[in-house]
Amino acid sequence: MSRTVYIISGPAGAGKSTTSKIIARSLSRSAYIEGDLVDRMVVGGYEMPWLSQYHTDLIWKNILALTQNYLEHDHDVVIDYVGFPQNAARIRNEIKDSSVLVKFVVLMVDEHELLRRDAERKPEFQMGHRCLAGLEEIKHSNPPANHRIYTTNLVVEEVVKEIMENPRFLVNDSRGINEKIV
Amino acid sequence: MSRTVYIISGPAGAGKSTTSKIIARSLSRSAYIEGDLVDRMVVGGYEMPWLSQYHTDLIWKNILALTQNYLEHDHDVVIDYVGFPQNAARIRNEIKDSSVLVKFVVLMVDEHELLRRDAERKPEFQMGHRCLAGLEEIKHSNPPANHRIYTTNLVVEEVVKEIMENPRFLVNDSRGINEKIV
Repeated sequence: MSRTVYIISGPAGAGKSTTSKIIARSLSRSAYIEGDLVDRMVVGGYEMPWLSQYHTDLIWKNILALTQNYLEHDHDVVIDYVGFPQNAARIRNEIKDSSVLVKFVVLMVDEHELLRRDAERKPEFQMGHRCLAGLEEIKHSNPPANHRIYTTNLVVEEVVKEIMENPRFLVNDSRGINEKIV
Repeated sequence: MSRTVYIISGPAGAGKSTTSKIIARSLSRSAYIEGDLVDRMVVGGYEMPWLSQYHTDLIWKNILALTQNYLEHDHDVVIDYVGFPQNAARIRNEIKDSSVLVKFVVLMVDEHELLRRDAERKPEFQMGHRCLAGLEEIKHSNPPANHRIYTTNLVVEEVVKEIMENPRFLVNDSRGINEKIV
């Protein structure tokens, strides 16, 4: 049976965790890889991933290693992390088994809705206007339109259904995902 | 510079997390791998590791993959997980670089102290008498005496100092660790 790797990206507050967990729970054999947990495994010598390409590469290398182990053990994999087109392309290229499907999804949300969702969090988890910087970074990476999903007016079940059923999110090869379709 | 992998084992409540985190923080470049977090990455098809050899093998395979990536990036690694002599031997054998040191440490504690520490946790984390089953399992795996440290009458700083400074915990090869020295 063919396995699927879902890479769920988007700015902080767009619903990556919630969406990823629902997808993982709906699959009969699955793993949920939370990139932030992998990030925080580094203790001594830790550098903020957005300030250190070296550290970001290490995180993705670890995500890839975990993904490959889960695939070998017949699990689908849901990756919840801020990923850019080149990260998705690399995952696709490193997974040599072409029967494995890779979907790269960027959860998009408008500024107003991002701030509204942020305000609904517990105070200690609120980011305030800092969450807008994450949205800008994602926009700047310019993910192709077919990998984006606008969640502002959707409930999470609609987002999950679209991600799981629509083949538009499939990553075919590194060339395909680097094309700027928008 | 030679790197060190610390495998910190012992029953739930023996102080694995606290000890591991202090070691990781004391090292200039380090990673802290919490086995329970790796365990919980599996969502669909999850099986309790103590009931599933398959799942336990997958956890250790993932811990090994992460460890190898961190070593390649010049980090020391602290693994916090219930591990038996054969798990430590496998880690030692899979790390081909013989300049990397592997220490296997089993935190031991007497029953009375284990129950006392358990009672000090927040109610939702208390295990009660179930924590004694974990202690029995560790004893049953019969870790060699040189890999054990009795923590009942020590403060955590003393435990950390002993682990970091005493070469008795070193795993030399698969034969060495399977010798029943006790």
